[in-house]
Amino acid sequence: MYKIVLMRHGESQWNLENRFTGWADVDITETGRQQAWDAGKLLKAEGYQFDVAYVSVLKRAIRTLWTALDAMDMMYLPVIKNWRLNERHYGALQGLNKSETAAQYGEEQVLIWRRAYSIAPNPLALDDERHPRFDPRYASLSADELPATECLKDTVARVIPLWEESIAPDIKAGKKVLITAHGNSLRALIKYLEDMSEEEILKLNIPTGQPLVYELDANLKPIKHYYLGNQEEIAAALAAVAAQGKAK
Amino acid sequence: MYKIVLMRHGESQWNLENRFTGWADVDITETGRQQAWDAGKLLKAEGYQFDVAYVSVLKRAIRTLWTALDAMDMMYLPVIKNWRLNERHYGALQGLNKSETAAQYGEEQVLIWRRAYSIAPNPLALDDERHPRFDPRYASLSADELPATECLKDTVARVIPLWEESIAPDIKAGKKVLITAHGNSLRALIKYLEDMSEEEILKLNIPTGQPLVYELDANLKPIKHYYLGNQEEIAAALAAVAAQGKAK
Repeated sequence: MYKIVLMRHGESQWNLENRFTGWADVDITETGRQQAWDAGKLLKAEGYQFDVAYVSVLKRAIRTLWTALDAMDMMYLPVIKNWRLNERHYGALQGLNKSETAAQYGEEQVLIWRRAYSIAPNPLALDDERHPRFDPRYASLSADELPATECLKDTVARVIPLWEESIAPDIKAGKKVLITAHGNSLRALIKYLEDMSEEEILKLNIPTGQPLVYELDANLKPIKHYYLGNQEEIAAALAAVAAQGKAK
Repeated sequence: MYKIVLMRHGESQWNLENRFTGWADVDITETGRQQAWDAGKLLKAEGYQFDVAYVSVLKRAIRTLWTALDAMDMMYLPVIKNWRLNERHYGALQGLNKSETAAQYGEEQVLIWRRAYSIAPNPLALDDERHPRFDPRYASLSADELPATECLKDTVARVIPLWEESIAPDIKAGKKVLITAHGNSLRALIKYLEDMSEEEILKLNIPTGQPLVYELDANLKPIKHYYLGNQEEIAAALAAVAAQGKAK
């Protein structure tokens, strides 16, 4: 039996402002840092040890991981940063306020854009300065790999190779793994692990900064999963994530 | 022609208290953080780019690197943490105040312990709680690799394999490398690169938190080297390091 810990980054500035973030490299807020610190302290208090951590190349996930490692007194942990754990790319929606978008297009369209499995927002134009081809951290990616928009299906397709080629072998080698990533890259991974339908994954919400433990069998199929910490706080955080697409 | 940047961690709590640190996992001070931040801002202002950073597994070096990467807005940089970049292990001296030790044993003995190439302080006993075999970050090291004390010659012997097997190949592959480490692991590396005598390395001092640029030829032999930043401040910092062994 194996045990891994998944953690969505702490609250970011654009979570707070209710804007579509995607690959925009927005930092976490002071609340987000506190969530990350508390998550690290909680993991330490519960006796969790790790051999390696995986994280996206976006600073809200990296700072969340750094802060949690600091709280665990495990700054020395090997960390693998990989773009495949990035948030879903939100295309031309990146930077827009979710409530404004909902008021303009209707809640239903926003919910489709946020949650439909195979429908991606309009892509960023190739000359849009937000396009990832202008960012040196993605210089080694091929044009095929570099997204200008993604639906969740696209996110699943680029997350899973990292799981299969690196994370799963690490787990099977006996390494204790922590993954710090984003709402949709974690949903992508969970859909794959749980073999969820497109409808099921549509309803799954993941709160920021809460350690989510997955216990896996010898074939890395989930046996059970649970959030660490105060269960009432987690239920409230889940309800808040679900409400983000509503017009205000 | 290649260019690498070496950086000693920012001021640590035990630098401030003038105590022998070695492998003790002491954090940097607020001054040390500011040094690291300024170093990152300086590197960015001077147009430095990096493809990979190497760092020890000690938090004063890791936090220095994290802070500098944050200042450079390059938190996404791949980071390789390796014990071979750790500070020289100071054996039974770890934790002792340098001035007190100098008053007790004489400045000459302290200078020998600090700077003699082949004379190591008394080792930590196997059951000493400071012994690295009790630390999970060193669990994968063999008994032969795990030091209980070191002279600088020992430090050179364990730093160089990392240079030869990983750092040098990265440089030759065209990667721009940043190395954040410690006074003696950097001296070990510089002795090797410059092919310095034991007498020459005895006189070399490295200030905390100042980016030191080495330009290397095709065979990775140094062409020239220089500190970035305010040269008067660097001269003052060098003088302060040289004075640390004196009784007060």
